[in-house]
Amino acid sequence: MNVDGKHYTTIWVDETDDKIIQIIDQTRLPHSFEIVNLTTVNEAAAAIKEMWIRGAGLIGATAGYGMYLAALEAPENEFDDFLQLAAREFIDTRPTAKNLEWAVKRQLKAILSVQGTSEKITTAFTTAKSIAVEDAEFCRRIGEHGIHLISEISKRKKGAPVNILTHCNAGWLAFVDYGSATSPIYAAYNAGIPVHVWVDETRPRNQGASLTAWELGKHGVPHDIIVDNAGGHLMQHGMVDIAFVGADRVTTGGDAANKIGTYLKALAAVDNGVPFYVAFPSSTIDWEIKDGIKEIPIEERSEDEVRFMSGKTPEGPQTVLICPEESRARNWGFDVTPSRLITGLITERGICRASEEGLRSLYSEGYSEGTST
Amino acid sequence: MNVDGKHYTTIWVDETDDKIIQIIDQTRLPHSFEIVNLTTVNEAAAAIKEMWIRGAGLIGATAGYGMYLAALEAPENEFDDFLQLAAREFIDTRPTAKNLEWAVKRQLKAILSVQGTSEKITTAFTTAKSIAVEDAEFCRRIGEHGIHLISEISKRKKGAPVNILTHCNAGWLAFVDYGSATSPIYAAYNAGIPVHVWVDETRPRNQGASLTAWELGKHGVPHDIIVDNAGGHLMQHGMVDIAFVGADRVTTGGDAANKIGTYLKALAAVDNGVPFYVAFPSSTIDWEIKDGIKEIPIEERSEDEVRFMSGKTPEGPQTVLICPEESRARNWGFDVTPSRLITGLITERGICRASEEGLRSLYSEGYSEGTST
Repeated sequence: MNVDGKHYTTIWVDETDDKIIQIIDQTRLPHSFEIVNLTTVNEAAAAIKEMWIRGAGLIGATAGYGMYLAALEAPENEFDDFLQLAAREFIDTRPTAKNLEWAVKRQLKAILSVQGTSEKITTAFTTAKSIAVEDAEFCRRIGEHGIHLISEISKRKKGAPVNILTHCNAGWLAFVDYGSATSPIYAAYNAGIPVHVWVDETRPRNQGASLTAWELGKHGVPHDIIVDNAGGHLMQHGMVDIAFVGADRVTTGGDAANKIGTYLKALAAVDNGVPFYVAFPSSTIDWEIKDGIKEIPIEERSEDEVRFMSGKTPEGPQTVLICPEESRARNWGFDVTPSRLITGLITERGICRASEEGLRSLYSEGYSEGTST
Repeated sequence: MNVDGKHYTTIWVDETDDKIIQIIDQTRLPHSFEIVNLTTVNEAAAAIKEMWIRGAGLIGATAGYGMYLAALEAPENEFDDFLQLAAREFIDTRPTAKNLEWAVKRQLKAILSVQGTSEKITTAFTTAKSIAVEDAEFCRRIGEHGIHLISEISKRKKGAPVNILTHCNAGWLAFVDYGSATSPIYAAYNAGIPVHVWVDETRPRNQGASLTAWELGKHGVPHDIIVDNAGGHLMQHGMVDIAFVGADRVTTGGDAANKIGTYLKALAAVDNGVPFYVAFPSSTIDWEIKDGIKEIPIEERSEDEVRFMSGKTPEGPQTVLICPEESRARNWGFDVTPSRLITGLITERGICRASEEGLRSLYSEGYSEGTST
């Protein structure tokens, strides 16, 4: 999407040197827009591990390009071994990220299936590009499907802005372009439908206040940041017309694991008759499990993400302690929204009910490693 | 309650000079424990408006003492007019606070009902003290009633810690002593019942992470801070046995206005069968209104409470911007939890259902200005 009028994706090949991959360093957002070059396996692995980039789709795309960098780096006489080691290094950066392993394995299979170093490098390059292009394309289609939900409301409201609530960052910064939850919003905005977004700040890491607000603002989409506590009140007073969130994992039953706090917003949406949609590319679906609350393991993260808060001061970046020195915190990263609270799921193939029947209506063949469209 | 072993209340008359009212500057907590003197109407009004003190009961007690300071300050020839103006000034500091208006009107009525300046000052002093003493006593009784809810769970859990969730600070720092939501917790802790408290950090002002965590820690009560997003996940996984929250205003129908985000926790409690209690002294009840969502005005506060975050660095206190410079925020202070989501109300008179019948069973005579017990 746009940054001050110029189109960007979150990862791309340098225009003048196709041995350089470029990314936006998201740890510097929203206060500074910095582009980083990745030229080695170690740099690409650090980009994932240190969260210069994050988000399911973008992690996968970065690992894809990382495997291309591995092919460039690999010594000719131990090419395949080097690639295998690089694959392991990438997979170990964020062990729970589903897309990461998928992208690395797809690359490995493609590269090892051809002969000759230069052919392998070419294959690695085209495969990395395909992974990234597919990611953006899948997100674009989510927008194509989701825009109708917004335009219907817009008609009902006779052109008054459609108020949309979102949680965390399921925006273009989490993918290669468009985003999942934000894709219908960008599509509507670009089509001239008046929208206004309530951006949950999304404690503890504040991806809403720092990333979603930044990307919406840079693209020009009207928005206001609210605390995570506020969504229920807004819904009670008719100030939310529809909610779109992303997902980190969706079960065959339609339960959705997403950033902690999503479940609370879904409860409020149901209580107030607000449509609540979960948007994601089909690589997010875990066809092996059905009951999200029982079966999706929820990562517990460092207590210091809760106890400290980072931001900007006139003198530069700063981190502050926000609780007593002696108090401890607990920090679960995700929660699971049961399918019964979800109005519908939006994938690259369309919109369906949050149920096994719904998902099977879009994926009658079951999911097959991102090659299905 | 205790601070490092010494008993404190949140407001008191200076031991050596009864023209000085002392408070704990709660804006300095949890990083610094500082006592501030109030000697004028303006100082007392600033203490309320700038939130050096906050919380329903303490706002009322401070306004009570503020009216005493007004009586000390009032010119003899326009005493009553000065008191009327001071009353208006106090009432205007915090529009949602029911106790504030109640305390000011009680003072005004008491003061204006006697003749002679020195009698008026004496009346103002004794009335202020009564308001403060009653506040503490009402809170103590809330604990006396609420402890049984905890001890029942403790028996069922065979002495394993009872996990209690609370939101914001309805602790002794919000009243004169004991607190409302915390009073049953302190009573249980003091009686040797093992308890553990999940402390919602309570964005945007973080009264949970800064105040509730501080006061529980100083009194010795085991607790962990969580982000406001986490409570639903904990309830889904059986990690919350009971929830206690306070209230800023309760309607005759049993709807409760409390810190923004309370409603979301009540929804999650109902969804997971977790008992959800709202604790408050009866001065919190607004006998004039029934439908909280329609009738309770919700204060909108400065966006900068959302956009900035304050805390401690090794070099001292610091405030950081946590969102893009260009992004705006909206900031409502409270939300309303409808009575249908509330398991019970706890007041100084006992526990009742969250309904008009419930409240009338405790207050058959209706409420009469805090003199009823």
